[in-house]
Amino acid sequence: MATIDLKFVQGLTLEEKASLVSGKDFWFTAKVPGVAASMMTDGPSGLRKQADGADALGLNDSVAAIAFPSSALTASSFDDHLLFELGQHLGVAAKAENIGILLGPGVNIKRSPLAGRNFEYFSEDPLLSGRMGVNYVKGVQSQGVGVSVKHFAANNRENQRFTSSSNIDERTLREIYLSQFERIVKEAQPATIMASYNKINGELVSQNQRLLTQILRDEWGFEGFVMSDWGAVADHVAALKAGLELEMPGKGPESVNEIVTAVKDGRLQESVLDRAVLCILTIITKWGRPVDAPTTDYDQDEQHTFARQLATESIVLLKNDAAQLPLKSDEQIAVIGELAARPRYQGGGSSHVNAYHLVTPVDAMPTTATYAQGYVLNDDTDDERLSQEALQLAQTSSHVVIFAGYPEDWETEGFDKDKITLPANQNNLIEKIAAVNANVTVVLQNGSAVEMPWVDDVAAIVETYLAGEAVGEATWDILTGQVNPSGKLSESFPLRVVDNPTALTFGRDLQNETYHEGIFVGYRYYDAKDLAVLFPFGHGLSYTTFDYHDLTITEDADQVSLTFTITNTGKVAGKEVAQIYVGNQTSKVEMPIKELRDFVKVDLNPGESKQIKTSLSRRDFAWYDSATASWRTDNGQYEFFIGSSSRDIRLQAAFELTIGSESTAPISGNTYISEIWETGDSKIEQALEDSGLKEKIKPILGSGNDAIFANIPLRALGMVNIPSDTINDFLKIVNQ
Amino acid sequence: MATIDLKFVQGLTLEEKASLVSGKDFWFTAKVPGVAASMMTDGPSGLRKQADGADALGLNDSVAAIAFPSSALTASSFDDHLLFELGQHLGVAAKAENIGILLGPGVNIKRSPLAGRNFEYFSEDPLLSGRMGVNYVKGVQSQGVGVSVKHFAANNRENQRFTSSSNIDERTLREIYLSQFERIVKEAQPATIMASYNKINGELVSQNQRLLTQILRDEWGFEGFVMSDWGAVADHVAALKAGLELEMPGKGPESVNEIVTAVKDGRLQESVLDRAVLCILTIITKWGRPVDAPTTDYDQDEQHTFARQLATESIVLLKNDAAQLPLKSDEQIAVIGELAARPRYQGGGSSHVNAYHLVTPVDAMPTTATYAQGYVLNDDTDDERLSQEALQLAQTSSHVVIFAGYPEDWETEGFDKDKITLPANQNNLIEKIAAVNANVTVVLQNGSAVEMPWVDDVAAIVETYLAGEAVGEATWDILTGQVNPSGKLSESFPLRVVDNPTALTFGRDLQNETYHEGIFVGYRYYDAKDLAVLFPFGHGLSYTTFDYHDLTITEDADQVSLTFTITNTGKVAGKEVAQIYVGNQTSKVEMPIKELRDFVKVDLNPGESKQIKTSLSRRDFAWYDSATASWRTDNGQYEFFIGSSSRDIRLQAAFELTIGSESTAPISGNTYISEIWETGDSKIEQALEDSGLKEKIKPILGSGNDAIFANIPLRALGMVNIPSDTINDFLKIVNQ
Repeated sequence: MATIDLKFVQGLTLEEKASLVSGKDFWFTAKVPGVAASMMTDGPSGLRKQADGADALGLNDSVAAIAFPSSALTASSFDDHLLFELGQHLGVAAKAENIGILLGPGVNIKRSPLAGRNFEYFSEDPLLSGRMGVNYVKGVQSQGVGVSVKHFAANNRENQRFTSSSNIDERTLREIYLSQFERIVKEAQPATIMASYNKINGELVSQNQRLLTQILRDEWGFEGFVMSDWGAVADHVAALKAGLELEMPGKGPESVNEIVTAVKDGRLQESVLDRAVLCILTIITKWGRPVDAPTTDYDQDEQHTFARQLATESIVLLKNDAAQLPLKSDEQIAVIGELAARPRYQGGGSSHVNAYHLVTPVDAMPTTATYAQGYVLNDDTDDERLSQEALQLAQTSSHVVIFAGYPEDWETEGFDKDKITLPANQNNLIEKIAAVNANVTVVLQNGSAVEMPWVDDVAAIVETYLAGEAVGEATWDILTGQVNPSGKLSESFPLRVVDNPTALTFGRDLQNETYHEGIFVGYRYYDAKDLAVLFPFGHGLSYTTFDYHDLTITEDADQVSLTFTITNTGKVAGKEVAQIYVGNQTSKVEMPIKELRDFVKVDLNPGESKQIKTSLSRRDFAWYDSATASWRTDNGQYEFFIGSSSRDIRLQAAFELTIGSESTAPISGNTYISEIWETGDSKIEQALEDSGLKEKIKPILGSGNDAIFANIPLRALGMVNIPSDTINDFLKIVNQ
Repeated sequence: MATIDLKFVQGLTLEEKASLVSGKDFWFTAKVPGVAASMMTDGPSGLRKQADGADALGLNDSVAAIAFPSSALTASSFDDHLLFELGQHLGVAAKAENIGILLGPGVNIKRSPLAGRNFEYFSEDPLLSGRMGVNYVKGVQSQGVGVSVKHFAANNRENQRFTSSSNIDERTLREIYLSQFERIVKEAQPATIMASYNKINGELVSQNQRLLTQILRDEWGFEGFVMSDWGAVADHVAALKAGLELEMPGKGPESVNEIVTAVKDGRLQESVLDRAVLCILTIITKWGRPVDAPTTDYDQDEQHTFARQLATESIVLLKNDAAQLPLKSDEQIAVIGELAARPRYQGGGSSHVNAYHLVTPVDAMPTTATYAQGYVLNDDTDDERLSQEALQLAQTSSHVVIFAGYPEDWETEGFDKDKITLPANQNNLIEKIAAVNANVTVVLQNGSAVEMPWVDDVAAIVETYLAGEAVGEATWDILTGQVNPSGKLSESFPLRVVDNPTALTFGRDLQNETYHEGIFVGYRYYDAKDLAVLFPFGHGLSYTTFDYHDLTITEDADQVSLTFTITNTGKVAGKEVAQIYVGNQTSKVEMPIKELRDFVKVDLNPGESKQIKTSLSRRDFAWYDSATASWRTDNGQYEFFIGSSSRDIRLQAAFELTIGSESTAPISGNTYISEIWETGDSKIEQALEDSGLKEKIKPILGSGNDAIFANIPLRALGMVNIPSDTINDFLKIVNQ
């Protein structure tokens, strides 16, 4: 293989270089003398390796691979190490299949529960999304396989995704929609980034120089290449100039021609093309694999076992009244619902995997259990016969487990939902069965939050999301207590979809998606609106109980250290995800009540205690100040909330931060009297005295309208006959 | 008096001209040879004529004048003619006092119930604000007195009002925050407009050329002059250039000097100064009055009577369980609450009037009534003795009327509230009294929406806002049924302040107020969020009942005509405000469920029916398209809702509008397959056939991923091997 440097690139013909900045087709980069083609493949949750040109968009058959749980579920593990392991397994599989670049993970924020691709993303919270992403990427890349972190950025709806503009203020963009990408770039240096379809503030991401070059490369130090989402490039020349190196898929000779012509016409500088080619070849040389080499075997059974473990560590026990679960081994269990036999275990679209070994819940159910279909999955009307059969079974069973969820064609890549209710026939059946049996557990299979009109009528609810090919085994591991559940919701479940902050506007404008809610996404919104939710962010029950105690917070030169202790106060071993939220009560800008700033998962035997030690840096307290284009950490009052969920806070403490900066603005003509009057600041007091301003303000502040006067800035005091000379003197003295 | 033209202006000295573009002091314009000084005075709800230099900000003593109800109450009349009459009375008084310009009305939108100046404004709805404003202005100006419509624009909070930037998208600005000003300028041509303190999108309104010149003059045709709010000018030269003619108040010689110097330095073109001076002198010549002429008398008793009538026509009966009201004449009534004896009847700040003749509720109460103070108004802690006394009285009375409300210093110009709860001692007392007497009526005196934790515990609630100097008479007119209430809320009362759309952000950022909720202000938000409210916009009960029937909607060349009939089905005469809301279900942008587009107040005897005929024009169906900077009326489906309140809809009908424009976008590479596939449009069908695109798309749309493919635009079809030539052919044919 050739040494890749600028000289090598300049030695290629213009046509060769032009061929390299588009995909050879759907899955391959072009080859040139000295550098082989490299294959990439879909699949954040499992390989979707496809023969070249298999079908038009390549959404169908692919080689068999392990279908791991979707990201909606894996994020619920809140487990950094498990995500790293997932990445390792994917890397092993990719390597065996000669894949150079794996297209994943997807780390977009779940802004609306209606967004069609939520199942493929981690969370509504950027910290959780970022941490999950970092570990996933490190895991894949530890095996010598590159990733493509997607979809960069603010691609939070599917409808009109090729043209819709995500209109976002800069602070919100930085804090909510970019910070997880920033974390992944800085901590895991992914091989590639995938630029999304949409526009941001009117400009296509694929042509967005500020995003792709200034922020991604110059600010964050990204060293890989940027490829387009499939078909996202509208103007290839503009995209190259903006910093998008690889158009995917290629349009064949047309793609090559347009670049060659642009260089010859002078519309594209050859040096821009050279830079892109050098970047692509550098990465391909580092991560690419010989595509024609024979594939090798890898231990797929071991991976299936891991898929099962990952699911069990992630499944969320939402409700468990009167210790309904775990099921006793001698119970007569009715297993109801077509999803038990034909489970929804992965998402539709580009993440769809040809599963190696699917084990359905019916396959894995205890021998004491009896199955009834109950409803037809792909039809939301009641089936009287199936429904009666299920009811009869329910009446004669000691416990009922109903499997409910979305049919795949309700929830897939490429379009958004217009409601988050389950099919009516499933909701009806649950209500009917709950009326005849008090011991009902609902097991959910869905990609994203759903409304549950029957929430108060059933004893237990288990959220399995899209649990991967070991869905059956994992579900029963949890139901029977083989594994003690420890998953926590990575998204809020609202009572009604209209409660979501985006409900008025999501998908309403065909050309624009305006992020009206700003930074108030997910729990940041529900908390601040003091709104009841169905299940809060971070919620998840266990078969044991945990006690939190002994919180201490200390500050040293550049970090804040927290210690607290968790004790397993129940009868079985279990894991707990301790969530550390911080509320900024000091900055003079809009702030959520609290934001997730760290989390720790601990494993505890009954009676065991562990002390958690963790620390937060300046950036963990920062907000993005668009006026100065920088992250700002203001000294002052903060509140710490240590919780078992975002609404089950176990420890709370105020803290005075001093490792940041003082937030006081310079005093100017725009400073209000209230900001300089009786502040106790000796410098201000002195300046008030020395300038003579104090004696001039004093009589005004006794006229019975103090509150009004306090809200007048210095520059407007002319109207109460305070001469501008006096004000200027004051400003001069105080700012000396 | 001289003839005012450009020649006259150019004949003035530079110093004379410079003196004219600032106030001589707080209340007067400068005089120059040939043009006398002119006086202006505060007071949307009554004259606040003040001796020059009376006190620093001039907020205290003024000549006695009628204190009319504040705008929060008058808007609740929903009565165009009454607002015109109010204007006439104010004009008569101003004329008698030699006032040239009356500073009012205030027509800002009530965006948050926390905003300190809501009492001075009309409504959360721009149509209602605009209609009330138009009639008020026409009334004043019919008497030869000019107005200053304020505060232009988007001055929706008081805190940091001199520097805070109202950050608003263009559509929201136009539809919600400017349209009432637009209506007033176009329909009533006010003598002057007052530019507000705040910034809009980062630029001070007083220096905002786009707002003050392009929109106000060039688009709307404003012919008067723009003055600043008191002390709002930060850079006088920049303000003049932007189109602000008059700085108020003047800063004395400093103001003159800065203009003279700027002209001499070449920083200000003399022609810009000349234009401003000509504009000011033209208006002063038209509307000014000789300030030194003796004042004359006017019939203040007649005005007091009108103040009483205006209040009775506006007071809102919020709740009236089991026909609790009107009170029977023989009842033993307990009148409780210091506000009955010392009522809050007007707002604080610049609208504060030295009332001609205050009649308190205690003054006007029936002889059968007994008063107890109950609580101390200016202290929110319980007074045990007063409370006990009131309870005893309540226990021995057949009916209790409790007067409750805010102390004045909780609610005034110049600062915002941080909660909307009544003082705790008042809420406590209401609860206690409701526990011992089932016949409790609460009468509220407040400037803006309040929370009512006791709403379910009392029988009746009467909202009197700040009812003016005839507060006592008007309140008892309603309580006793002397007048049948017909007021309707001009703002929504939320259950909790946090339910308001601005709750997360209002006043949180010291330098910015970002209008995150966009067009979803007030009921537009509560409706779209399907949120329960305490009392909805447009709500108000009557002592009679009304039946709505026989709705017909027809369309002719340029308007949509509605007819419907209202019948008084009760036993007493009464007035009803029929509210006509329209829901736009056709435009491809964010839309409220419905918006107020017209209202009609009718007077009906028992058994009487009246047919209402009204019509809507194109603009009434329009939304502001910022992409084309124009109002757009889309043809298609609309829903009409005729209601007695925004949540008490009596008649509803769908309507297909055809007097607007077709909303279809031109077909381009950004057009989605779903927009051209099986549309039934023969032109599109033909182009699909002729270009060969149809046969190329067909096989793709059968692959089981139709929903995904339908959401791909033409320009991205290259990735499914559809050549760009075919697509270009299609576009050429279809756009021929």
